Amino acid sequence: MPKFVISLFPVCIVPLSLTDCFCCRDDEDTFKILIATDIHLGYLEKDAVRGNDTFVTFDEIMKCAKQNEVDFVLLGGDLFHDNKPSRKAMHNCMEALRKYCMGDKPILFEVLSDQAVNFGNSKFPWVNYQDENLNISIPVFSVHGNHDDPTGADGLCALDLLSCAGMLNHFGRSLSVEKLEISPVLLQKGSTQIALYGIGSIPDERLYRMFVNNQVTMLRPREDENSWFNLFVIHQNRSKHGATNYIPEQFLDDFLDLVVWGHEHECKIAPVRNEQQLFYITQPGSSVVTSLSPGEAVKKHIGLLRVKGRKMNLQKIPLHTVRQFLIQDITLMDYPDIFSPEQPNVTHKVQAFCQQKVDYSGGFESFNTMRFSQKFVDRVANPKDLLHFTRQREAKDGMRDEGIDFEALLSRPSSEVLQLRVEDLVKEYFQTAEKNMQLSLLTEQGMGKAVQEFVDKEERDAIEELISYQLEKTQRYLRERHVEASEEKIDEEVSVGLRG
Amino acid sequence: MPKFVISLFPVCIVPLSLTDCFCCRDDEDTFKILIATDIHLGYLEKDAVRGNDTFVTFDEIMKCAKQNEVDFVLLGGDLFHDNKPSRKAMHNCMEALRKYCMGDKPILFEVLSDQAVNFGNSKFPWVNYQDENLNISIPVFSVHGNHDDPTGADGLCALDLLSCAGMLNHFGRSLSVEKLEISPVLLQKGSTQIALYGIGSIPDERLYRMFVNNQVTMLRPREDENSWFNLFVIHQNRSKHGATNYIPEQFLDDFLDLVVWGHEHECKIAPVRNEQQLFYITQPGSSVVTSLSPGEAVKKHIGLLRVKGRKMNLQKIPLHTVRQFLIQDITLMDYPDIFSPEQPNVTHKVQAFCQQKVDYSGGFESFNTMRFSQKFVDRVANPKDLLHFTRQREAKDGMRDEGIDFEALLSRPSSEVLQLRVEDLVKEYFQTAEKNMQLSLLTEQGMGKAVQEFVDKEERDAIEELISYQLEKTQRYLRERHVEASEEKIDEEVSVGLRG
Repeated sequence: MPKFVISLFPVCIVPLSLTDCFCCRDDEDTFKILIATDIHLGYLEKDAVRGNDTFVTFDEIMKCAKQNEVDFVLLGGDLFHDNKPSRKAMHNCMEALRKYCMGDKPILFEVLSDQAVNFGNSKFPWVNYQDENLNISIPVFSVHGNHDDPTGADGLCALDLLSCAGMLNHFGRSLSVEKLEISPVLLQKGSTQIALYGIGSIPDERLYRMFVNNQVTMLRPREDENSWFNLFVIHQNRSKHGATNYIPEQFLDDFLDLVVWGHEHECKIAPVRNEQQLFYITQPGSSVVTSLSPGEAVKKHIGLLRVKGRKMNLQKIPLHTVRQFLIQDITLMDYPDIFSPEQPNVTHKVQAFCQQKVDYSGGFESFNTMRFSQKFVDRVANPKDLLHFTRQREAKDGMRDEGIDFEALLSRPSSEVLQLRVEDLVKEYFQTAEKNMQLSLLTEQGMGKAVQEFVDKEERDAIEELISYQLEKTQRYLRERHVEASEEKIDEEVSVGLRG
Repeated sequence: MPKFVISLFPVCIVPLSLTDCFCCRDDEDTFKILIATDIHLGYLEKDAVRGNDTFVTFDEIMKCAKQNEVDFVLLGGDLFHDNKPSRKAMHNCMEALRKYCMGDKPILFEVLSDQAVNFGNSKFPWVNYQDENLNISIPVFSVHGNHDDPTGADGLCALDLLSCAGMLNHFGRSLSVEKLEISPVLLQKGSTQIALYGIGSIPDERLYRMFVNNQVTMLRPREDENSWFNLFVIHQNRSKHGATNYIPEQFLDDFLDLVVWGHEHECKIAPVRNEQQLFYITQPGSSVVTSLSPGEAVKKHIGLLRVKGRKMNLQKIPLHTVRQFLIQDITLMDYPDIFSPEQPNVTHKVQAFCQQKVDYSGGFESFNTMRFSQKFVDRVANPKDLLHFTRQREAKDGMRDEGIDFEALLSRPSSEVLQLRVEDLVKEYFQTAEKNMQLSLLTEQGMGKAVQEFVDKEERDAIEELISYQLEKTQRYLRERHVEASEEKIDEEVSVGLRG
């Protein structure tokens, strides 16, 4: 039996199995699963050059699923970039799903678990391919990411619209913020059984705390516990962004066989064994470059996972429609023979030299990047990002350290303002507002959360809802104490109430 | 043969036919069509009491379609209240469509026309019930209204999402703004043939102009022209709102048999014959009260239209879930025996008398409506609307007549600001802004349109797109004249360019 497989995709066959390789023989016991994540539909959709990139790549991914006749598609969250996707993004998504996931190809696996539990959040709580009114050829299963998570009073997310339309199966949704009990979707094809677990994106700190407090339970199938292949999809920080702002791999149960890790954009799709827990982790990475970081310059892939019994194999499939992203650091000081800050026409020299990112430390002057980048309009998709002048630890950042002047803020270029975090602004307001002007009914925490929902998730009622809630609470408090309707008395009582 | 029909709905059987009544005998030649319009899904969806009204009524309408086993549903536009419906509105809409319009009931009529023409705007340009991947039991056909019309660079509207999901057939879409050529959807059931025409909402003035210029053509079937029942759906002003701000009935072709008139909210569903054109008009009216006007206090209905050969019958079906809306004018001066402005405690007397709208002309003082309305919280759904104090021609409105002070505007209560029209604000700005501050590249007309799109249609890029467009145009102009890069010269050239 060959250890390596010949495939249509000449690159990157990753043979991998718990004991053996079998992927060349797709048979009636072999699940074929297309794995992708962080597709970010709608990212930069207004960009004249890159506007359609995410839609084109999603089309490539779904076409690949169809060509490979997979049993199902498994997505790791952030299918959409915006919490409230534009009409165009939603329309393009539906178009691809209807085009590639409907048809007469028979579905050869069964769902054994209680679907009312697995898809309890849906108005149609069953897997879409079992709906007798829909002719589904490739079911798509997805958890939500932090970009397309549920918000608002109804707790709906963009994926729920697709679920309601019968185009996708949104799973891994939890309603509690204290405790998670994850019932797997139990799938059977021939003799192979997969227990599919998922957790839709939750703030990292909260999930971390739940893990630490032993409040995360992964339920196991009652019968033949050890015959299942345990597949888990998560959409969280994998790398440490702070003490509790990530999910350490060893938090996850050791009965798992494979973890599909979403959210992290760097493609590290080749499964890596966690030697402590003895499971494998695959990190497919995003299918679009959303930040100018080296991790995003790594070639993008999706995965074709085969599972037979408890053995698996993951085939890397390179994405052909993703723009090649190049990044390079150049430090001018490393070229003392060519440049020195004192040279009279050094700027021209540097400009001629630069087609890369330049470290400008050491007293060098920068030049007009706009004019520079125009020369590349026909050759790169993001000419404005072409050059980033940086000076290491020379100038103070200032934005985070000093107080925020809200007046001045409005006159700053928006590119600068965009670097500020919403939470910082709210915090700053509460710290710097004059005492007599300060909000006394609304707390920094409440306001911070509401403003963030308003900005990041476009929940336009978040602030109004907080205020109504707080107002009602205060009125109830005042009524209970029978406070008379004089302004001073109310002020007094309220501040007592807040202190108490 | 009975002239009146016994029905499940005891009220309002409207026997009507071109020559004869036949609706008691549904047979294989009889089309049964449910007609409704202006459902305004999402209207007041944040209201604590009335928030779900539109969803509940849409459910009633679609359930009624199912119970009556209609061949199809015909909607006259404004299915959604907001151009960008909330997630909740879209979700609820999809839920009802999937629940009531999918299933095994066979479809007993055919589409004879070229569907690629009828539904050319869709990525799936065929009627949804003929899609072999969808099991549709009741197809829904709809034109768009002014609330849910296509906007933005892609020209998509909310109905297009439903079309893309296979849940609705959006027709009556025109791409030209100069000329309309309407190809009917040709339907056949047994021996009955319907030519279904539709025009999605267009600004009234524009459509008026097209009619006047003979630029609206309704194409007729080539064969047996006279054997078709010609049904037309339109969503425009029917009553005159200005010289050209409506569509006169006599503009419409006289070969039509029945016009379904959307947009007008008053239920005048009983077909009325236009004696000049010899067609009938049915105006179903909205299924939700959206303005405090007498027309909206008329009981709401939908219609069950039967068509056999060229005969028709329209049965009125009252909607049971619509809140009863009561409106009454009271003029205090009409009660000189009870009230006079000079009475010392007249306010209390009036307050006791008032459970209606009161005309306060004649020197009377008003009282606190907030406190008054609180007494009705449990009895009416809109306590805040309970009383409207009006004084006839006593105080100047002031808002429209005098200049708008933008500074002062920001400090006005938002209820007042809401009465201003966006166009007025833009116009005012251009008239009052100081000359040296005035926008010279952007015109009032362009800005007005962009701001309106931004506000009314939530097209968040409308203003930016206008500015980019204008900037580019100006830059091109300057480049062509090789203007040097000094600020004065540019200003000079630009103003010359604008004048020229």
